[in-house]
Amino acid sequence: MTTTRRDLLCDCAIAVLAAEGGRGLTHRAVDRAAGVPTGTTKNYFPSRDALLGGAARRMTRLHEQAVTRLRETTPERVSPAEVGELYPALLRRSLEDPTRLLAMAELYLEAVRRPAVRAELGRMAVANAEAGAGLRSAAGLAGGTRDAGVLDAYFLGVAVSMLALPAESLREVGLDDPYELGLGLFQAVVPGHAPTDTATVAGDAADHSSG
Amino acid sequence: MTTTRRDLLCDCAIAVLAAEGGRGLTHRAVDRAAGVPTGTTKNYFPSRDALLGGAARRMTRLHEQAVTRLRETTPERVSPAEVGELYPALLRRSLEDPTRLLAMAELYLEAVRRPAVRAELGRMAVANAEAGAGLRSAAGLAGGTRDAGVLDAYFLGVAVSMLALPAESLREVGLDDPYELGLGLFQAVVPGHAPTDTATVAGDAADHSSG
Repeated sequence: MTTTRRDLLCDCAIAVLAAEGGRGLTHRAVDRAAGVPTGTTKNYFPSRDALLGGAARRMTRLHEQAVTRLRETTPERVSPAEVGELYPALLRRSLEDPTRLLAMAELYLEAVRRPAVRAELGRMAVANAEAGAGLRSAAGLAGGTRDAGVLDAYFLGVAVSMLALPAESLREVGLDDPYELGLGLFQAVVPGHAPTDTATVAGDAADHSSG
Repeated sequence: MTTTRRDLLCDCAIAVLAAEGGRGLTHRAVDRAAGVPTGTTKNYFPSRDALLGGAARRMTRLHEQAVTRLRETTPERVSPAEVGELYPALLRRSLEDPTRLLAMAELYLEAVRRPAVRAELGRMAVANAEAGAGLRSAAGLAGGTRDAGVLDAYFLGVAVSMLALPAESLREVGLDDPYELGLGLFQAVVPGHAPTDTATVAGDAADHSSG
C-alpha cells in the first residue's frame, strides 16, 4: 500500500490537529510538519474545509485498514469475551497514543459549524460503526451498526474525558481504570438494546445483574 | 443573585467558544460579544489560560445553580423512573441549545494541552458528577459519584456526536432518538456497576475476569 503525497499531508494535518487543536491547523503548519515547500498543502487542499475533509477521509481509511488487519489475524470464530477484551485494549491505545482520537474529537467540533466536514465525518462514523458491528457479528453477538455506533459515541466521551481531566479528578469520577471502563463500554450497549434471541448475550447480561 | 462584570465576560467567552470554537476565542472577540471597551477582558483575564479557566469556573457555577433549582423543585422522594426521565430531557436541551455543551467540549480539548484549564475542568467534572450522584441518591438508587461520572462521559460523547454528524448518519449509527438514548445513558451505568445494593464494583469486576 503506497502512501501518496496527499496521504502524507493528511497525516500531518491529523498530527497538527491533535497537537495544537483546530486553532493550530493552518495550511502553513501542515507544510512545515510535512517538510514540503510553502504552498504545497494549499495546492492539494485549497480551503480549510478541504483540508479538514481530507483529514477525516484519511482517518476513515486508516481505521478501515486497521479493522481489516484485525480481521485477518482474528480466528474465524472469535468469542464474545475476546471481542469484549478489545475495548480495554482500544481505550489504552487511545490514551498512550492519543493522536488519532484527539484529531477525531477536533473534527467533531469543526463539523458542528462546517457542513463539508460534517458530511465527511458522517461517512467516517458509519464506517467505524459498521466495522464494530462486523466484529460483534463474527462473535455471534446480537446488535448491529446502531449499537456499535452508540458504543463509539460512549467511547469518544470516555477517551476525551480521560485525556482532559487530571488524575485525581478521574479517580473521583470513576474514569481511572481503562480495563473496567473498556469492558463497561462493551456491556453498556448490550443489555438495553440487544434482542434476547442470542443465548450468549442474554446469559451474559443475566450474569451481571445477578452478580 | 447578581451577575458581575466578570460573570458577564465569562458568559460571553462561553458563547464565543460555542459559536466559533477555541480558534475564535480571543480577548477581543469577548470584548465585542460583551459590548465592552477593547481591553476590558484582558484586564480581568490577562492570559488565554485565565480566560479559559474563568469560563470553566463559570460553567461549574451555572451547573450547580441549575442542580440546586432542580432539587428545590423535586419532590423529597423522587422515583428512579423520574430520575431516568431527566436524561432524555437533558439531552434534548443540549441539542436545542448547545451553547454550554459545545463550550464544555471545547474546554475539554483545550485542557489536554493546558494544565491550568485541566485543573479547573477537573473541579467542574467532580461537581457535575456529585450533582448527578445526589439526584440518584434522592431516588434511593445505588451508585455514587463514580457511576455518575461515567454517565457524564457517555453523555458528552453522545451529545457531541449528535451535534456533529448529519441526520442520515445519525440514523444509521443509532444516534437519532434522544429519548431512547437518554434512557439508555441512565441504564448503561446501572447494570454493570450497581447490580444490587449488596454487590460491589470489585465483586462485579471479579465476575468479568473469571468470565
